[in-house]
Amino acid sequence: MTTPHIQIPADRYATRLAACRAAMAERGFEALLIGVGPDLRYLTGFVGEPMERLTLLVVPRRGEVSFVVPLLEAAKASATPLAAGGHATVVPFAETDDAAAVVARLLGASERSAGNQSIGLSDRLWAMHVLQLQRAIPARPFEPASTVLRDLRQVKDADEAQLLRLAAQAADRTIEAVAAGRLIGRSEADVSREIRGRLIDEGHDLADFAIVGSGPNSASPHHDAGDRLIAPGDAVVLDIGGTLNGYLSDTTRTIWVAGEDAITPEPEFIAVYDLVRRAQAQATASVRPNVPAEAIDASARAIIADGGYGEYFTHRVGHGIGLEVHEDPYMVAGNSTPLRPGMAFSVEPGIYLPGRRGVRLENIVLCTDDGADVLNRSSLDLRIVRG
Amino acid sequence: MTTPHIQIPADRYATRLAACRAAMAERGFEALLIGVGPDLRYLTGFVGEPMERLTLLVVPRRGEVSFVVPLLEAAKASATPLAAGGHATVVPFAETDDAAAVVARLLGASERSAGNQSIGLSDRLWAMHVLQLQRAIPARPFEPASTVLRDLRQVKDADEAQLLRLAAQAADRTIEAVAAGRLIGRSEADVSREIRGRLIDEGHDLADFAIVGSGPNSASPHHDAGDRLIAPGDAVVLDIGGTLNGYLSDTTRTIWVAGEDAITPEPEFIAVYDLVRRAQAQATASVRPNVPAEAIDASARAIIADGGYGEYFTHRVGHGIGLEVHEDPYMVAGNSTPLRPGMAFSVEPGIYLPGRRGVRLENIVLCTDDGADVLNRSSLDLRIVRG
Repeated sequence: MTTPHIQIPADRYATRLAACRAAMAERGFEALLIGVGPDLRYLTGFVGEPMERLTLLVVPRRGEVSFVVPLLEAAKASATPLAAGGHATVVPFAETDDAAAVVARLLGASERSAGNQSIGLSDRLWAMHVLQLQRAIPARPFEPASTVLRDLRQVKDADEAQLLRLAAQAADRTIEAVAAGRLIGRSEADVSREIRGRLIDEGHDLADFAIVGSGPNSASPHHDAGDRLIAPGDAVVLDIGGTLNGYLSDTTRTIWVAGEDAITPEPEFIAVYDLVRRAQAQATASVRPNVPAEAIDASARAIIADGGYGEYFTHRVGHGIGLEVHEDPYMVAGNSTPLRPGMAFSVEPGIYLPGRRGVRLENIVLCTDDGADVLNRSSLDLRIVRG
Repeated sequence: MTTPHIQIPADRYATRLAACRAAMAERGFEALLIGVGPDLRYLTGFVGEPMERLTLLVVPRRGEVSFVVPLLEAAKASATPLAAGGHATVVPFAETDDAAAVVARLLGASERSAGNQSIGLSDRLWAMHVLQLQRAIPARPFEPASTVLRDLRQVKDADEAQLLRLAAQAADRTIEAVAAGRLIGRSEADVSREIRGRLIDEGHDLADFAIVGSGPNSASPHHDAGDRLIAPGDAVVLDIGGTLNGYLSDTTRTIWVAGEDAITPEPEFIAVYDLVRRAQAQATASVRPNVPAEAIDASARAIIADGGYGEYFTHRVGHGIGLEVHEDPYMVAGNSTPLRPGMAFSVEPGIYLPGRRGVRLENIVLCTDDGADVLNRSSLDLRIVRG
């Protein structure tokens, strides 16, 4: 199945850059240094993986924006919407050049008067580059660029929301197909491979993760799919996601495998499943503008605690999602950020009984003026898979 | 086709840790802080992707090694060969804990007397974590941990060499299958998808990259496969690689597509191909212990310069390969590191005529006492693909 891709319009990148520079001025940043990753994709449209050669968008608060790239990526950088639109100048360097020195020179030239204002680094810039840049630009304080970019990226526009919806639907179709079985006798790794293949077939460009935690492994939230064979009576946590034109899907369902003497789940499993489901529903119902992010976590946590399983809900209830699978805003105690329309995040309570089993249910929701728009549509009913 | 996987023996990790600590003492490191990535996999066996939650192996020069992990990854960390073997203690933190403060406390407790000795950071640790750690541990100089780990990781043991060989052979089979065609009328992106699928089918766990640069796009060394349809008379650069039990493949072939009126390549293409092939052969023949890495680059460059195309060979001739697709040692001007038996790296000269076409040929070689052991075995002859 081919999902029609939405393209972010080329002129959107100049709009984002302007908003970024306005926020830099407000927060006292002299410049942002943005390495390969989601921040760079957001600002320029550049798609790639970080490597030992430095690729860095240098955004001074005023003046020319420079895209410092290894010579062999110059053509690719020039073709990004930001550079092709004339909003950034590509500055290639050769294999034996010192890229950090090139950046230092650009900063010195563009903003000599900035004094001790800070330099922002993108969250995912590699330490090897951070240490090189700190050595080349010794006199300035370095801060996370996310201080500026968080507020921009965490509110999605209509095109971004539509990409998240397409990705969510592709993940839903994958869950439906895999949950239809057969599962008994197959290894977790084999099911995980099937999921990765289906994520692509359903329209993702990349299959990022496919957690399959069966039986006791379901109690390890980030279990790697392994050699264990799925057996009748197992709970199986499926936590899957991929990237569609840059935007991530992430959904979790917990299913129960029937067969041989295992006809129905034991009562405790049914009770735990029901508790997680109610917590998931309650947290989703709590979503509306101006509610603090931590309140979404608290509303799920209250239900699970009331049910007597509070100590087994060992993680936050959710994370923002967009160009990263985990990004701001985080639904976690201590985060008082008020929700705003356009914020997209997971709602995924879980209960994990060590060495026995676990249940997690996860949807991506979009905050709207009217509350949560739930992007995942596969059923949250307890699914008993035969075979 | 299923390739039998070699497993790194569990006791190898303790051996690596001991070698690491000996090198730390020699080079005056107080501690290494190793985040998720190839360094962590090398030292512990931990497989994963970096995320916003800090996962960090804290290796003081003496005393207990701590594996600081988010609570929901504690089970996974405990199962790594290093931790399961009793050589590291898992230190889980909760969602609302300050992980950098946990690390600072561990360092203070273990090595209070270290004074101003440096702290090593793994090359790929994210800037968000670097800045948090620098704030939590303010008084110490930070340096790249690769200063210590480079010397260990760049010399492969027999198991690692065998994994690189298996990965190279899986990539060779992929090249053979794709080069057999059909290619005419297909988009680069479509061929790239086929390559990714075949890399997995041939035994890789991950399909990391599949560059398909056709016609004028062959002149952009890091071209992303796009919508261009492959046509008769095109040169096509295929640069592909995947991960097999942690170890990477990376091979490049340039083929020529015949059809309609395009019967044979024009003379300049044949001459350029021959030049790249001779440069590749000469650089490979130069590999032997104690030769400086830069001499491998120079020997390829001399042939291409003599042929009149020096200015179009715009990148180093090679990079080390192992748990990373690019790692030490780099075959580049200025790197005087003497080659040692067990070093594995690419030999990949190229000539790129902007807007017209490019040729690159790449093999992975292993330095042995007797010279280069070439791990890729697919033919370097000019391949003219019909259809």
